[in-house]
Amino acid sequence: MLLGLCSALRSRALLLPLTPPPRTATLRRRTWLRATSSLSSPPSPEMEASAYKFGPYRIDAREVFHATPLSYAMVNLRPLLPGHVLVCPKREVKRFTDLSTDETSDLWVTAKEVGVRLEQYHKASSLTFAIQDGPQAGQTVPHVHIHVIPRKKGDFENNDEIYDIDVKEKEMKEKLDLDVERKDRTMEEMSHEANEYRALFS
Amino acid sequence: MLLGLCSALRSRALLLPLTPPPRTATLRRRTWLRATSSLSSPPSPEMEASAYKFGPYRIDAREVFHATPLSYAMVNLRPLLPGHVLVCPKREVKRFTDLSTDETSDLWVTAKEVGVRLEQYHKASSLTFAIQDGPQAGQTVPHVHIHVIPRKKGDFENNDEIYDIDVKEKEMKEKLDLDVERKDRTMEEMSHEANEYRALFS
Repeated sequence: MLLGLCSALRSRALLLPLTPPPRTATLRRRTWLRATSSLSSPPSPEMEASAYKFGPYRIDAREVFHATPLSYAMVNLRPLLPGHVLVCPKREVKRFTDLSTDETSDLWVTAKEVGVRLEQYHKASSLTFAIQDGPQAGQTVPHVHIHVIPRKKGDFENNDEIYDIDVKEKEMKEKLDLDVERKDRTMEEMSHEANEYRALFS
Repeated sequence: MLLGLCSALRSRALLLPLTPPPRTATLRRRTWLRATSSLSSPPSPEMEASAYKFGPYRIDAREVFHATPLSYAMVNLRPLLPGHVLVCPKREVKRFTDLSTDETSDLWVTAKEVGVRLEQYHKASSLTFAIQDGPQAGQTVPHVHIHVIPRKKGDFENNDEIYDIDVKEKEMKEKLDLDVERKDRTMEEMSHEANEYRALFS
C-alpha cells in the first residue's frame, strides 16, 4: 500500500504551491488566519506563541496538535484515512539528510508517539510511516514531513496493493479526475480534529 | 509514488513465509548458506560473526552491507529500483513502537546515511523512506524495516502517481500477474551489490 500519499501531497500542493500562490479565499484562510480561543480546547499558550512553518507557508496553530522542542504534528487538509497526519521538524529543511542527529531522533520519536496514540484512538491495528524526500519521490512542499497513517483491515479494498510501473496513462487520468472531486476540509473540521488529538497528549 | 513497496515485500514473503517454509533450493540457500571469503570484498569479520535476523529468518551476511551497534542494512531480493534496500534494527521487534529511543534514533540515522550514499551512488535525486508497520499496512515479515529507495526523474512513468481507493479487482489481478513474472535475484547478484555498497561506508 503506502497508497495515495501523493494524492494528499498533491492536494496540499493545490493550496501550497511552490510558485507564488494565487490569493484564493482558501489560501488566505490557511496562510493568514491565526488561532483563536473560541474553541472548546484551544491550543496551549506555547502553541499559540509559536510560528509553525511548513516550507514557505505559515501553519495555523489550530491545525497543530502536538509539539516538542524540535518537532510538531498537524492534521491534514485532505487526509486519505482517518488520523492521517503529518509530523515535521520545526526547522525548515528540505531534505531528510539536512536534519541533525538530534532533530532526526526527535522527529521519529515524536512520529512514533503520535502513531501509537492515533492508532489506538482510531481503533486501527497498523501504521504507515513515510517520507517523500525530494521532488522525484513526490515531495511537493520543500520541508521534511513524515506521513503517519493509521491502518485497519479493509481501509482500502486492496490494502497493500498499488500500481507501480505499469499504470496506463488513461487510468491515471481517471485517478486525477477523482482527485479533483475531493474537497478541502474546513478549518472548523480540522480544528475539531486537532482538539481531539491534542487531548491525547495532555 | 511510494509505489510498489508491497510488491517488494510480497516478493520477499515468497521466500520468507510466516508459516513453516517450503524447503526449496532458494530458501535453503538464503537460510543456510554462510558468507564465504571468496568475494572480492568479503564482509568484515564483525559482519561475519554476527547473526543477522530478519523476523524468524537468518540473513546471509553477504547481503548485509552496513551495520551499527543497533542496526543493519541489507540489499533486497527483488528491488523495485536500483538501490532499493532495507534498514532494520538488530533486535527483532515487530512494531515500530517496540523500539527504544536509542534504537529508533540509531535506525533512522543509519537509514539517513544509507540513503545519502545510495542516492549519490545511483546518481538519483530523491529518496523514499517508508515503514509498513503492522500487517494492515502491508508488513509481511514481523521485524521492523525501513525501505530506502533512491528516486530519479522518470524512474516510474508516473513518478508519484498511485492507485488508492478505486482500483478495480481486474486491474489488480493484472498487477499480481506481473509480479509473478518477476524473478528472484541470485546470491551472486546480491553479494556483488552488497560489496559495492559496503565500499561506500569504508
